[in-house]
Amino acid sequence: MKVTIFTELNDSMQSEVGKKAYKNGMNNCLKEFISNEHTVRMIVHTKEDNGSALTEEILKDTDVLVWWGHALHNTVADSVVEMAASYVNRGMGLVALHSSHKSRLFMRLLGTSADLSWREANERERLWVVEPSHPIAKGIDRYIEIPADEMYGEPFSIPTPDELVFIGWFQGGEVMRSGCVFKRSRGKIFFFQPGHETNSVYSIPEIQKVILNAIEYVAPTAPIAEPFRSKNVPALEKID
Amino acid sequence: MKVTIFTELNDSMQSEVGKKAYKNGMNNCLKEFISNEHTVRMIVHTKEDNGSALTEEILKDTDVLVWWGHALHNTVADSVVEMAASYVNRGMGLVALHSSHKSRLFMRLLGTSADLSWREANERERLWVVEPSHPIAKGIDRYIEIPADEMYGEPFSIPTPDELVFIGWFQGGEVMRSGCVFKRSRGKIFFFQPGHETNSVYSIPEIQKVILNAIEYVAPTAPIAEPFRSKNVPALEKID
Amino acid sequence: MKVTIFTELNDSMQSEVGKKAYKNGMNNCLKEFISNEHTVRMIVHTKEDNGSALTEEILKDTDVLVWWGHALHNTVADSVVEMAASYVNRGMGLVALHSSHKSRLFMRLLGTSADLSWREANERERLWVVEPSHPIAKGIDRYIEIPADEMYGEPFSIPTPDELVFIGWFQGGEVMRSGCVFKRSRGKIFFFQPGHETNSVYSIPEIQKVILNAIEYVAPTAPIAEPFRSKNVPALEKID
Amino acid sequence: MKVTIFTELNDSMQSEVGKKAYKNGMNNCLKEFISNEHTVRMIVHTKEDNGSALTEEILKDTDVLVWWGHALHNTVADSVVEMAASYVNRGMGLVALHSSHKSRLFMRLLGTSADLSWREANERERLWVVEPSHPIAKGIDRYIEIPADEMYGEPFSIPTPDELVFIGWFQGGEVMRSGCVFKRSRGKIFFFQPGHETNSVYSIPEIQKVILNAIEYVAPTAPIAEPFRSKNVPALEKID
Repeated sequence: MKVTIFTELNDSMQSEVGKKAYKNGMNNCLKEFISNEHTVRMIVHTKEDNGSALTEEILKDTDVLVWWGHALHNTVADSVVEMAASYVNRGMGLVALHSSHKSRLFMRLLGTSADLSWREANERERLWVVEPSHPIAKGIDRYIEIPADEMYGEPFSIPTPDELVFIGWFQGGEVMRSGCVFKRSRGKIFFFQPGHETNSVYSIPEIQKVILNAIEYVAPTAPIAEPFRSKNVPALEKID
Repeated sequence: MKVTIFTELNDSMQSEVGKKAYKNGMNNCLKEFISNEHTVRMIVHTKEDNGSALTEEILKDTDVLVWWGHALHNTVADSVVEMAASYVNRGMGLVALHSSHKSRLFMRLLGTSADLSWREANERERLWVVEPSHPIAKGIDRYIEIPADEMYGEPFSIPTPDELVFIGWFQGGEVMRSGCVFKRSRGKIFFFQPGHETNSVYSIPEIQKVILNAIEYVAPTAPIAEPFRSKNVPALEKID
Repeated sequence: MKVTIFTELNDSMQSEVGKKAYKNGMNNCLKEFISNEHTVRMIVHTKEDNGSALTEEILKDTDVLVWWGHALHNTVADSVVEMAASYVNRGMGLVALHSSHKSRLFMRLLGTSADLSWREANERERLWVVEPSHPIAKGIDRYIEIPADEMYGEPFSIPTPDELVFIGWFQGGEVMRSGCVFKRSRGKIFFFQPGHETNSVYSIPEIQKVILNAIEYVAPTAPIAEPFRSKNVPALEKID
Repeated sequence: MKVTIFTELNDSMQSEVGKKAYKNGMNNCLKEFISNEHTVRMIVHTKEDNGSALTEEILKDTDVLVWWGHALHNTVADSVVEMAASYVNRGMGLVALHSSHKSRLFMRLLGTSADLSWREANERERLWVVEPSHPIAKGIDRYIEIPADEMYGEPFSIPTPDELVFIGWFQGGEVMRSGCVFKRSRGKIFFFQPGHETNSVYSIPEIQKVILNAIEYVAPTAPIAEPFRSKNVPALEKID
């Protein structure tokens, strides 16, 4: 399968804590474990560009787009957002990680602002499996323990997910719909809350397993289709 | 309750068939029966303007927005679409009638293109009640018969509705999810498929009843709130 | 509105901790605050009977049935379970409190075993509002804090709820889909997790508010109907 | 994969029209095309027995149970119904065909009476694909045309399906949620409406394709598990 990672390089990743969390950088951590199973192309959006390295040629050649964004949401070009949204509607899978909940792509596809409560306190999170037979939870026991992560909590202004796979428990007292599937036309989206850039969450084997499961799950079941277009059709039965 | 109707005046309405369908115009037909139960303000968008008569002052003073658009979708200003979408997310109800499925507001809130099959053949439609105890179907028997309407058929590229109230049967052989509730943050949306401007569908008492029921159903349960905003919150429990 | 409370008198309620939690008994606590708003009839099932005091005459005269059971689930007569399930399908509302998740009525209506994890440790629970505009959450802020309750945790083997209103956070590390709406034919069911009989949870004003909201929400929108019966119907269109 | 077909031999199948519809019998038609892809065991329930040939040993050795019943629903032993329901909850897939909507197994798993309108008039049905990217619709164009079948129409008293794949259009004027997925604990159920025993519907290649797709879709993602059991669990965090 062909996976494209669209991510950013932000100041927090390059700070001392960021480097401590991920020796080779968070982006490379993602790239490495996904590359073990799939052909991966990675696009790193920086303050110097507008994300337009994510071209239509690349989307055409992508089964699943993995998106990670935080500080640079607003510098992604409108045309990139629209084009990616269109490809999701046409059947490309999307895995939206952590702070991508506020990416314009995610909000564009959901229709809501995806706001929430948050706190950076390096607190413990426990991700509970709510639907044990869901393919995204395959191989995961009752829960995954994350030693330290940013807290993301309810209320989370999203439409009711088509499938709720994980609920997060936070040490500081909050809960979160942390693993949610949304369907949009022919495309499937998986939002997965863990993964602040200064906590080495993506190094945890079970977290990697969930992301790999999710890539399989949201992958298209058929070749990416043309966009839906309203069609004027003749009657199939006699109208009198 | 305060209802704002946003509609358009298009060529088809002003054609001979349009005038024959509605002696006083389709827009006035809508206004009249809704006015029997609610305070109504109507904004008519024409080729000469960009719909910006729908101001924030009006939205602030609106419980439910009833939207009808067809030929003029693309001349509605971006800012009007965004502002109305924001008010829906804040709790304002939306009733999207007929060809409003392709209004930019509806697609913006759904995240999909809302495409479908269509045919203008003055054919018979029968709207079947799928959830008989749903408040929007209150007072409606097993089905509503519409002597002639435009056909709108599946596949209809929408997210799975939160509630499916009506399925339409068409004489020419198609079916349609014709009455659908979607929730977006604090707001409720009802899409109702019937109502081509050259068929006098909105004169049918049961169709009026459904629209009035829908206005009640999507009305806010609390005053329109401020937009959700992500919030940095202190811990409620000790983190050690 | 007419509310029937079906509850039990068990050893735990009559123990020292049970009496300390509710001076006049948990059942009377429920009866009192519901009586402030509705006409209440209460049926107390004991070890000496099989619950058949809940007759069809009473169900016919009931808008909403509030059910609380724990130790005596298996002594409720089959015929009572079947009859109550039938009335829910016909439109009567059901509020299933706490350990009623394992009542035969609840499992009969859901089709699953409704199992979960549990612990009696008098721990703190925080009920988070997931859908802030839901009528059952009306008047509730971001969360309700419960000083001490039994823990009920995921995985909770239920079908995906039609609406998820509350998620519970527990001090000991678990989460729970604590407030769920299910629809069954014409009837609405609200499951609400809090309320162990040795913790005075039903004395908390916000908990009372949720239960009263739920009673309103699941109440029938029309008079209780005859059971659905498959019907042989003539064709509405010519078949050639 | 191991598929068990539980079906019945009824008078209608053995009548002249029944034999004309299926030269070798409807049951053998089902068995043959499923055998092309899977290991099939078939149990035929007759007026002389109570269905108890469907033993726990067989269920233990079954990935997907395909159920067809009509005239003999009420002679299936209670214990068979309960055991099969338990296996679905534990992860075994279920494909419920046509009149199986009124099987006690299906109603037991749904919690509703699954009633509907019906008519035997050998009328044309057109099954519309509502979710084109759903694995069960794989390889199917916009619709499947069935020359003649029994009509099953709305309102269909079922809980809201987790996924709606097909809607049926009938010549006589009705519509039907004809292809529905329900999840119950670890198990998936697909209800598929077509297939009256006196119309040779299961001989249609696209109908066979849907049933084969459905078998794949509802198949367990992991070995059949032990039943869920409520568990008393120790705290994961300190409670003070």
